[in-house]
Amino acid sequence: MDRIRRYPELAGDHRRDLDAVLDAAAVGTLATAVDGLPWVVPMLYARDGDRIVLHGSTGAGALRQVAAGAPAAFSVTMLDGIVVADTLFDSTANYRPAVVRGCLTDFSGDDAVHALDLMSDSLIPGRSSEVRTHTKKELAATLAMALPIEPGCWTVRVRDAPPPEPSMDSVGWAGVVPLRTSACEPIPAPWVGADMPAPESVRRLVANGSP
Amino acid sequence: MDRIRRYPELAGDHRRDLDAVLDAAAVGTLATAVDGLPWVVPMLYARDGDRIVLHGSTGAGALRQVAAGAPAAFSVTMLDGIVVADTLFDSTANYRPAVVRGCLTDFSGDDAVHALDLMSDSLIPGRSSEVRTHTKKELAATLAMALPIEPGCWTVRVRDAPPPEPSMDSVGWAGVVPLRTSACEPIPAPWVGADMPAPESVRRLVANGSP
Repeated sequence: MDRIRRYPELAGDHRRDLDAVLDAAAVGTLATAVDGLPWVVPMLYARDGDRIVLHGSTGAGALRQVAAGAPAAFSVTMLDGIVVADTLFDSTANYRPAVVRGCLTDFSGDDAVHALDLMSDSLIPGRSSEVRTHTKKELAATLAMALPIEPGCWTVRVRDAPPPEPSMDSVGWAGVVPLRTSACEPIPAPWVGADMPAPESVRRLVANGSP
Repeated sequence: MDRIRRYPELAGDHRRDLDAVLDAAAVGTLATAVDGLPWVVPMLYARDGDRIVLHGSTGAGALRQVAAGAPAAFSVTMLDGIVVADTLFDSTANYRPAVVRGCLTDFSGDDAVHALDLMSDSLIPGRSSEVRTHTKKELAATLAMALPIEPGCWTVRVRDAPPPEPSMDSVGWAGVVPLRTSACEPIPAPWVGADMPAPESVRRLVANGSP
């Protein structure tokens, strides 16, 4: 995938591009080094201004190590389309990979409540205002963490373009197949009556077509 | 996200679940440790039986280190749905995270040609038979690598279930909002005539609705 560095449309590293990727995706991969070996775990996350908010169980061992300040890298990628060229070599993807490097800090109290609400609202906008707030027991079981987005500690690349132009007369079709992720019709839990309407946040999510 | 280990539907580690995740997704995150620090890069990949095939430019520095045999971890996650519970604490996602650990090997010759064809066909089934094969120059510029899928060196988790059942009478709606990624109408490159039909592989991809 590194080969696409050759294309000028991948230049950039604009903060607004980073924010767009972080706000569009829902899952990223958290990586750290444990005893010199790579350790990775996919995690739901939310962006909260100049930080990425993550959460996990207070029981998770390696996660605790990361939360304790070990250097970490968080990777998020949006795959926007498949780029079909005349050759396999020039075929690629329109994608937006982002990496944020830094040290995680854990936090608690009102800050944790705000962060956990944000995580839910990032997946389902408006959801946190429809349900009760977190109990002390729930907060005690949850490790809330933040990764700061600091200058010089992140990269984002944006490929959003047709295939590279062929050097000789193109003999065949070339173009882009866009990919789109949509929210589909909600499936009620088994104990929920079929006549109970989904909450407004869920109906809005489906109406908007995507998370 | 580790909190969901509590749910029995996440038990498993079946090889068929691993293959299903690897075959459904197109982008993963490759992680290694460089001087004790985590290094991550998102990459297109394909599964080739008992190995994961990756490729990059021969010019990429850190990639070369990984290809040279440094321990690596490759993380792939499918996000299948948003799980809406009565509480934010029990809300989560239906997702399938997979991690394969091992050492990458680079390879060349016919093996590389096969692997690169597979990478293309993994994104667009049948595409490799519609275009010319790789030139020597293209092959020389491409680093083809494989990560073996070995027993004990991978994990996969599958959450595919309604929200956890509420401990008291549920007072509100709960359920799952499924997410689906679709291939949309192809966009021809600027130099391609509007009357030129997209190749069969592309038309099939769009007709099938997803990569």
